[in-house]
Amino acid sequence: MVNPIKEELNVQASNPLPADTVGWTVPHRARLADVNNPLPLDCGEEITPVEVEYETYGKLNEARNNAILILHALSGDAHAAGRSAKADELNRPWQKNRPGWWDRMIGPGKSFDTNKYFVICSNILGSCYGTTGPSSANPETGQPYGLAFPVVTVGDWVRLQERLISHLGIKRLRAVAGGSLGGQQALEWALAYPGRVESAIVIASSTRLSAQGLAFNAVARHAVTTDPNFQEGNYYHDAAPDRGLAAARMLAHITYLSEISMSRKFGRKYRNGDGPGFHLGVDFEVEGYLQHQGNSFVDRFDANSYLYITRAMDYYDASSWGDGDIDQACRRIESRVLLVSFSSDWLYPPEQMKELAIALSRCRKHVSYANIQSSYGHDAFLLEVEKLSQLVRGFLKVRGVE
Amino acid sequence: MVNPIKEELNVQASNPLPADTVGWTVPHRARLADVNNPLPLDCGEEITPVEVEYETYGKLNEARNNAILILHALSGDAHAAGRSAKADELNRPWQKNRPGWWDRMIGPGKSFDTNKYFVICSNILGSCYGTTGPSSANPETGQPYGLAFPVVTVGDWVRLQERLISHLGIKRLRAVAGGSLGGQQALEWALAYPGRVESAIVIASSTRLSAQGLAFNAVARHAVTTDPNFQEGNYYHDAAPDRGLAAARMLAHITYLSEISMSRKFGRKYRNGDGPGFHLGVDFEVEGYLQHQGNSFVDRFDANSYLYITRAMDYYDASSWGDGDIDQACRRIESRVLLVSFSSDWLYPPEQMKELAIALSRCRKHVSYANIQSSYGHDAFLLEVEKLSQLVRGFLKVRGVE
Repeated sequence: MVNPIKEELNVQASNPLPADTVGWTVPHRARLADVNNPLPLDCGEEITPVEVEYETYGKLNEARNNAILILHALSGDAHAAGRSAKADELNRPWQKNRPGWWDRMIGPGKSFDTNKYFVICSNILGSCYGTTGPSSANPETGQPYGLAFPVVTVGDWVRLQERLISHLGIKRLRAVAGGSLGGQQALEWALAYPGRVESAIVIASSTRLSAQGLAFNAVARHAVTTDPNFQEGNYYHDAAPDRGLAAARMLAHITYLSEISMSRKFGRKYRNGDGPGFHLGVDFEVEGYLQHQGNSFVDRFDANSYLYITRAMDYYDASSWGDGDIDQACRRIESRVLLVSFSSDWLYPPEQMKELAIALSRCRKHVSYANIQSSYGHDAFLLEVEKLSQLVRGFLKVRGVE
Repeated sequence: MVNPIKEELNVQASNPLPADTVGWTVPHRARLADVNNPLPLDCGEEITPVEVEYETYGKLNEARNNAILILHALSGDAHAAGRSAKADELNRPWQKNRPGWWDRMIGPGKSFDTNKYFVICSNILGSCYGTTGPSSANPETGQPYGLAFPVVTVGDWVRLQERLISHLGIKRLRAVAGGSLGGQQALEWALAYPGRVESAIVIASSTRLSAQGLAFNAVARHAVTTDPNFQEGNYYHDAAPDRGLAAARMLAHITYLSEISMSRKFGRKYRNGDGPGFHLGVDFEVEGYLQHQGNSFVDRFDANSYLYITRAMDYYDASSWGDGDIDQACRRIESRVLLVSFSSDWLYPPEQMKELAIALSRCRKHVSYANIQSSYGHDAFLLEVEKLSQLVRGFLKVRGVE
């Protein structure tokens, strides 16, 4: 028998981590809502109890004014940097020996410099990585919530994050930052808690999803909910709706890449040899890639969480802070704002980011906007680290804690 | 009891057709391959028997040189114009009292003027509208082919169409024309039978599908084949894989519209009232639209046919006529060629059509290329009739039979 703890230590010993890493990380848990203090939700309901999983990197200074909150995207988690010391214990093999999802941005000397900043990342409400979600026990039944979980919103996520920040004794954040759905959370922070955010970094995101984006999410949810294993969300004791979730993820991956990056990466290359195999199965490399993405996703993500999080993505509309008027909403903002889009991102197109930049300018807010030339599509927020770093460093330098 | 024939006559009587219609149409059937004369396929197999359903409009002149072959797209059929007189008899309620799919282009005085031309449209091999396909009886078993149907290609379709043309006593076509997958057939005609096509009209199409297009088809087929009702394609005596096919069609519809047309048509409008319903079901108008498209499609299309036809779409590569070199392929062409793309088409982007236009020019072929400014996306080939008509009329006029 392999001793998992011993094996983990061996791995740690045999894989010395690079000098600019935050090192081995351990997730924390905090109960941020209970019966005496339930979390109010945008849908009108309340939820309790709520546990939140989060990680921190670097040290909170005495003035408690060097904290940066990192916001994750759809399928992300609190493990944003370093290597998880608990991958085995938490039964998350996909985290094992892999750096956190934004490790190239967070660490000693990196953009979010852990020598200077206290960096926090928490898993969102409704997800499946330690924070309360549809797979958590419903206190009314003792069974997993399933579809009895309330519909949550980006606003709810941020409201819960505010509780975490208060729990950590932080009044004002040095910055909030995220890409994609994480960018919408950063924007929501600046709108919902104007006095508590010094600066907001909104990347590969927008004030709201386009009709096309809504359409992709609708097809993804259709695939999940029509999988017979779905059973109205009560699949936790049976086989999960893996086929539907895999289809949803395959589809999502198309929207994360650009047409040009797909062409460069796969083109029309066949997996076996030079020509058609004359069958209906996987014959092109791009098909194999998508199948792999779909199949590996189902091992690490909960189908119900996918439904709830895409729904929150659908519902988000920053202009609702101004009764549908984005200018009116922007007037609330007190933070400095950095907006970054990527030229080939077609899920959250640059045009939409530019509109937000113009609205913020019209309201005489402190806004910087950059459209990075990139062929990587939406995924660029994870890949164009060098260009992104330059922008983030410059932006954070202006009024730093140093 | 309703008498369907009487009812049909009533409908005919109470709905006088407009003057520029080809009128009531009746599909024909022809057996174009039998044991003595099987149809050879690109995959190396042969198929027999093969029946083809086709319709014709206008009259073949004595010289037999006024025939135009119209090629349909993925989910199309032979009923390109007029009103079907056999919708009830053939149990095709979706055709009832509806004009054919390109009715606005085909008829007396229209672009494909049936006062001058003899217009033919046939259902493609592998489809489910009267031409032999996976739902047809396999002569070896007497049962529907299902996945025992051979993998067919655009080349095979055109080879079968050539038999139909010969069967009708036509040596040389005045023109071949089609949009999308129909455009690829038109191109294939010009490549495979250079001496038999006077002119080719290729609309909203390209020499081959992009990696992104392959990816969308892969997800669509994944949705169909992972539907438990699919049963390896042997579902003809049971419930069909409707959920998977609906998902595939929903997805396809996103690629047929442009982002801008979706925004204009649906935006972020909610179906009921002004704000979120806080549920996971259909809440936005665009979701309702897609659900409707998906659900109505399963009533009129066979899931296996969807697999085979999208596979043919994947495999098509006009450059294979030149061993991967499009210029070398183009040198075969003797027809005059009209290429039309639409500015907002992202399934077959204008850029790809332009490349073909340039290749044809390099080979000193007679080519006209127009990129129509349209917000309708790929669907524009069915919608931008006025602009398209101008181009087609002008192109056909140059060397007409008149």
